[in-house]
Amino acid sequence: MEWSLTIDRAMPRPLRVVLRGVGQVFFCCNAVTGFIFLVALFIGGVTAGAAATVGVISSTVTAYLLGFSEDDVDAGLYGFNGTLVGPCLFLFLENSPQLWLYVVLASALSSIVLAALMRILGPYKIPASTSPFVLTSWMFLVAVYAFDSFSRGPVLPPAGTPAVVADAMAIPAEMWFTALTKGVAEVMFADSIIVGILFLTGIAIVSLRGALMAVGGTIIGVGFPILLGANQGMIEMGLYSFNPVLTMMAVGWVFLNPDGKSAALAVLAGFLTVICQAGLASFLAPIGLPTLTFPFVLVMWMFLFAAGKSKYWAEADA
Amino acid sequence: MEWSLTIDRAMPRPLRVVLRGVGQVFFCCNAVTGFIFLVALFIGGVTAGAAATVGVISSTVTAYLLGFSEDDVDAGLYGFNGTLVGPCLFLFLENSPQLWLYVVLASALSSIVLAALMRILGPYKIPASTSPFVLTSWMFLVAVYAFDSFSRGPVLPPAGTPAVVADAMAIPAEMWFTALTKGVAEVMFADSIIVGILFLTGIAIVSLRGALMAVGGTIIGVGFPILLGANQGMIEMGLYSFNPVLTMMAVGWVFLNPDGKSAALAVLAGFLTVICQAGLASFLAPIGLPTLTFPFVLVMWMFLFAAGKSKYWAEADA
Amino acid sequence: MEWSLTIDRAMPRPLRVVLRGVGQVFFCCNAVTGFIFLVALFIGGVTAGAAATVGVISSTVTAYLLGFSEDDVDAGLYGFNGTLVGPCLFLFLENSPQLWLYVVLASALSSIVLAALMRILGPYKIPASTSPFVLTSWMFLVAVYAFDSFSRGPVLPPAGTPAVVADAMAIPAEMWFTALTKGVAEVMFADSIIVGILFLTGIAIVSLRGALMAVGGTIIGVGFPILLGANQGMIEMGLYSFNPVLTMMAVGWVFLNPDGKSAALAVLAGFLTVICQAGLASFLAPIGLPTLTFPFVLVMWMFLFAAGKSKYWAEADA
Repeated sequence: MEWSLTIDRAMPRPLRVVLRGVGQVFFCCNAVTGFIFLVALFIGGVTAGAAATVGVISSTVTAYLLGFSEDDVDAGLYGFNGTLVGPCLFLFLENSPQLWLYVVLASALSSIVLAALMRILGPYKIPASTSPFVLTSWMFLVAVYAFDSFSRGPVLPPAGTPAVVADAMAIPAEMWFTALTKGVAEVMFADSIIVGILFLTGIAIVSLRGALMAVGGTIIGVGFPILLGANQGMIEMGLYSFNPVLTMMAVGWVFLNPDGKSAALAVLAGFLTVICQAGLASFLAPIGLPTLTFPFVLVMWMFLFAAGKSKYWAEADA
Repeated sequence: MEWSLTIDRAMPRPLRVVLRGVGQVFFCCNAVTGFIFLVALFIGGVTAGAAATVGVISSTVTAYLLGFSEDDVDAGLYGFNGTLVGPCLFLFLENSPQLWLYVVLASALSSIVLAALMRILGPYKIPASTSPFVLTSWMFLVAVYAFDSFSRGPVLPPAGTPAVVADAMAIPAEMWFTALTKGVAEVMFADSIIVGILFLTGIAIVSLRGALMAVGGTIIGVGFPILLGANQGMIEMGLYSFNPVLTMMAVGWVFLNPDGKSAALAVLAGFLTVICQAGLASFLAPIGLPTLTFPFVLVMWMFLFAAGKSKYWAEADA
Repeated sequence: MEWSLTIDRAMPRPLRVVLRGVGQVFFCCNAVTGFIFLVALFIGGVTAGAAATVGVISSTVTAYLLGFSEDDVDAGLYGFNGTLVGPCLFLFLENSPQLWLYVVLASALSSIVLAALMRILGPYKIPASTSPFVLTSWMFLVAVYAFDSFSRGPVLPPAGTPAVVADAMAIPAEMWFTALTKGVAEVMFADSIIVGILFLTGIAIVSLRGALMAVGGTIIGVGFPILLGANQGMIEMGLYSFNPVLTMMAVGWVFLNPDGKSAALAVLAGFLTVICQAGLASFLAPIGLPTLTFPFVLVMWMFLFAAGKSKYWAEADA
C-alpha cells in the first residue's frame, strides 16, 4: 500500500536496508513490513528476535564490505538469509555466549553463498531465495558434532535411519486454526499463533494476492499431510505448512505473471512441496538435520526453470 | 527400418505420442518399438504394464497442459520418464488404490523436472535422459516413511550402513544367458528373459548398432562384476547390467558420432558405470533407496560433457 | 624463480608434463617444483610415491588419448588429479596387486570428470581444481563395499552416525611445529614433517606469496579448531590444516588479484573452510568416507563465484 512505501522511503538508509532485509523473508521489499515481522519475532521470543537482528546486520554489512551490488543491498536482498540464520542456530543449538559469534560468521557466509548463487542463477533469472540460509545453516549445524564449544539442542532430530510415521490420527477441528497460523509463523521458526497473524498482516500490506497465496499454502500444508497420514504433532505445529506457504507465494505471486494460470500452477507446486519435504526429511535423517526451507527452494527452482520452457510463462519470465 | 516409420506416421497422433514415449526409454523415437516395449511390459506383469501406461499418459498430458514444446511432446520426450515412474513405484511400494494417484502426481512432476533440466542442460546440448524419473522416484519413494497411507515394499533395501558383499561366487555357465537378457529387461524393472529379448528386438528395428551397444552393455554388466567379486544374486538378475546397457547405447550410438572411436569410449563408459553403480548404492544405503538408472545418468553426463572438450567429438557434438 | 623455469623448459616434454602435473597439486606449473614434490612423496612412503606416479601418468595419457586440449595437458592440468587419486586409494584401501589397475581406471576417470567440469565451469572462469580427484575417489572408495576383490583399510572411518567429539584438549606447545608442517604434507596424504617442509620449499620456488598463504592456512587449520574444541589427534596430524592451506593459496594467491584485499578474503575463507570440513565430515559419516579436499573446493567455489559479483574483484576475475 502507498502509505507503507512512503514511510519506507522516509527512513534513514541503514534502518531501511535492515528492515527490508527482514521483509524479504516473505519477498517483501518494504521496511514497514520488515518492522512488523521483527516485532513479531521479538513477541515470539526475545532471543529469536535478537538473533535475527544480529543476523540481518551481519549479512548486510558483509555484502557491503565485500562490494556486492549496492542496489541489491538496498533492496534488502543481502539481509533475509542472515535474518533466518540467526534464529535457526539459536533454535537448534544450545544457547551459549560464543553462539553469537557463530551466528555472525554464518550470516557473513550466507551473503557470500548468495552472491555465488546469484552469479550462477542470474543468467536464468532464477532467484537463489533462501537457499544460502539453508546451505549455510546445514553446514554450521552439522559441524558442531566435531566441536566441543557448541552442542546440539533437543529440537534437532537425532541422527539415525529415517523414521516411520507412528501417530497418524485425525486432527481435532479446534486445532485447524492453530495449525494454519503457526504454519506461516514457522517460516521464521516461531511456534505462535499471534506471530503468524502478524506475518500475514505484514504481507497483506504489500500484496493481498501474496497474503492469499500464503493462506493457500498453509491450508495445503495442513490438509494434504492429513490425507497422506503424516505425523499429527508436526501438522499441528505447522511444520508441513511453512514450505508450501513460500512455494505458493513464489510461484503464484512473485516470480511468474500473477494470473489464474500461475495460481493453478502454485497449487500444484504446493502439493508437491509437501511430498518433497517428507522425502528430504528422510534424506537428512542419517545426519540429524532438519529440512529447513529447502523443499520450497527445490520445488520453486524446478517450477521456475520449467516455466521458462512453457509457452505460457517464457515471455513473462524472460 | 523404413516400414516401422511408415506405421509410426500412420497412427493417430495421441496413440503415436504415447507409444513413442515408451520407445524413448531406449532412445527410440518410434511408436512400433514403443508398442513392442509396452507389450513386453504387460507380459512381464499386468500391473507393471498398466502402471507404465498410466505414467506415460500422465507425464505427456502434463507437458501438454503446461505448454511445453509441441515438438518435444510429439517426439515422446515427455513420455519416457513417466513410463519408468509407474512401474518403479509399483515395484518398490506396497500396492494400494491410492498408489495410482501417487503415480499420476509423480509422473506429472517428472515432466516439470524434465523441462527444468532441459532449460539448464539445453545450452550444452546434454540430454536430461532418465534423470527426471530417478530424482522424482527417489523423492516419492523416500517420502513414504512419513506417510501412513503408503508403505515400503519388500524389494526396497532397508535403510542402514552400506552392506559388505557376502556371497561372491562364480556364476554357473547356464546362468549367463539368463543374466544377459534380464540385464536388458531390468531397464524397465522386468525380471524376465522374454522381456529382454523383446526389448532388444524393438531396439534392433530402429538401429542394429543400438542393439549391439545394448548387448555390449549387458555383457560388461555381467562379466565385470564377476571379476570384481560382486554379489552373485544381483549379477544373475541382471541388476548390474541395465545401467551399462543404457550408458553404452547413449555414448556409443545416440549422442556421439557413431564410429569406432565412440564405440571404444562406450566400452570404457560401460566399465565405469559398474563401479559407479556399486558406489552409488553405498551412498544411498543409509536411506534405503535403490540406484535406479542414476549411475547411467552420471557416467553419461560426465562423458558427454567431456566429449565437448575433445578434438574428436567437439564438432559432432556442437 | 627464473632458474627453475629454465630447467622446466629444458626437460624432455613427457617428463616435463608429468612433473608439472605433480606440481599443479599446489597450483605450481613448474616441473622443478613437481620434482621436489615427487621426491617428498617417495620420502613419505615408496608406495605412495609409486601410486602418485602411476596416477599422474594414467590421467595424463588418458587426456592425451581422448584428445583434450594440448595446452592444458602441457600445463600439467590433467596430471594433478591422478597424482592425488593414486596415494588416496592406496592409503584408504587394503594393498593388493589389482589395486594398481583400480588406480589406473580411477585416474583415467578423473581426467574425464575434469574435462566435463571444465566445460561447465569454464564460462564462469572458475577452476575445477581437485574436485575431479575427490568425486572419483569417493566413488571408487565407497564402491568397494560391493566388491570382494577390494577391501576397506583401517584408516577409512567406519560407516555410522556422525561422531561427537570426545577428547578436545589443549595441544602441548611442542606439538605446534609438527601440526603446522604436517598440515601442508597432508594435502598429499603424507603424515610427515619433512614432507611438509619440502612441499613449502617447492611452493616458495614458484611464489613466496603462495608459500605465505600456505603457512597462513596451516596456522588457521591448527589454531581455529583448538578454539572450537575439535579432536586433538586430528589437529596434531594436520588433518584440519590441509584444506585451509589450499583455500588460502587459491583465494589469496592464484585466482584473485594478489593484493591486501584478497589476502583478507583468504583469511575469512580459511576460517570457513575449517567449519565446512567439520560439517562435511558429518555429512559423509553414514557411508564412512573422508572429506578429502572437498571442503577446500566448496569454499573456493563459493568465494570465486561471489568475487565475480563484487566491484573489487569482478574485473580482475573476468
